[in-house]
Amino acid sequence: MNSIRTLLEQRTSVNHFDTRRPVDEAQITELVRLATLSPSAYNFQNWKFIAVRDAAAKERLKAAAYGQQKVVDAPVTFIVCGTLNAHRRLAQVLQPSLDAGILNADVVKAWVSMAQGSHEGNPQLQRDEALRSASLAAMTLMLAAQDQGLVTGPMSGFDPAAVAQAFGLTADEVPVMLVTVGYAADGNWAQKPRRAVREVLEVV
Amino acid sequence: MNSIRTLLEQRTSVNHFDTRRPVDEAQITELVRLATLSPSAYNFQNWKFIAVRDAAAKERLKAAAYGQQKVVDAPVTFIVCGTLNAHRRLAQVLQPSLDAGILNADVVKAWVSMAQGSHEGNPQLQRDEALRSASLAAMTLMLAAQDQGLVTGPMSGFDPAAVAQAFGLTADEVPVMLVTVGYAADGNWAQKPRRAVREVLEVV
Repeated sequence: MNSIRTLLEQRTSVNHFDTRRPVDEAQITELVRLATLSPSAYNFQNWKFIAVRDAAAKERLKAAAYGQQKVVDAPVTFIVCGTLNAHRRLAQVLQPSLDAGILNADVVKAWVSMAQGSHEGNPQLQRDEALRSASLAAMTLMLAAQDQGLVTGPMSGFDPAAVAQAFGLTADEVPVMLVTVGYAADGNWAQKPRRAVREVLEVV
Repeated sequence: MNSIRTLLEQRTSVNHFDTRRPVDEAQITELVRLATLSPSAYNFQNWKFIAVRDAAAKERLKAAAYGQQKVVDAPVTFIVCGTLNAHRRLAQVLQPSLDAGILNADVVKAWVSMAQGSHEGNPQLQRDEALRSASLAAMTLMLAAQDQGLVTGPMSGFDPAAVAQAFGLTADEVPVMLVTVGYAADGNWAQKPRRAVREVLEVV
């Protein structure tokens, strides 16, 4: 078992993956299960994960990711999407929380109304929310993978329109990050130094 | 020590905080240090954290967060910002990686050029990148806090312009999330059920 501090201090963004070691579907499912324990506004759960592991699919993704080889070398790359118009599905998404007695009907009604009021007709807020939820989930997925002895390579360097076309995303599905997952080969960078905390933190 | 699986399965978005238990500056600093071990595009580290714990500052934040009481009740709330125009500071931010021999001069030069080419004059990409980096860091901060026995309340329900004005943010600093941190009081919700993995995962 690894402490989260250890996971964070050991995590690096990996470019070189062992091409011989697979990641199986049970691992993929568990990573996504854990990723979806991340929070989202109103518990929207406005995310979708596409696990790319078939050879032909990897080539399609590589082409949409400016030819980055790690997409082919890694056993799996997740296209982590945030979804737009999440407010329209909110009542349905919260039904299990209502059924479980965690949220009451008044809270659900209020949230659906608030989300409708702020998100309907507000594409920038919807996009921000898609970015937020997908990024929160991607971070969790990376740490969960690290805990399983896997390494990860987060990427925002890809052509979103090309990814959308190559994988048949709907107009509501925004590809936010790619996360390659597998086992490290040689030649990866050490963790890069970070700015001093005093440069990025203000206490008031 | 907690496994990340335990942290994830126990994490909830907390609304009710114990008003009597403080969080000290050493804890705040350590949470931010760990949060900044998150990845960012080009290692931009395009984030800033404002830890709000003074009573008057909390009231300012509450006013900008639609009156949400947890901002006052929690010992500290982080305003997690992403920053725009990160490409302009990239050479400087990567200098320690160059000095440490992790990146070589050619890589740094190429990254600075690529980031300049894609980000300059592209406000939507800059905003997306600010949202991504800040959200990744916020997720790490929440899990690191959970590991220290703290609980957290992530919030995207606030007025960004009001937050910017109340805390003197620069035009480059985008408030992406608020994260309240402290100790739980009674009356918080259990973790809300998640959509089934099969609904959100596609394997290709």
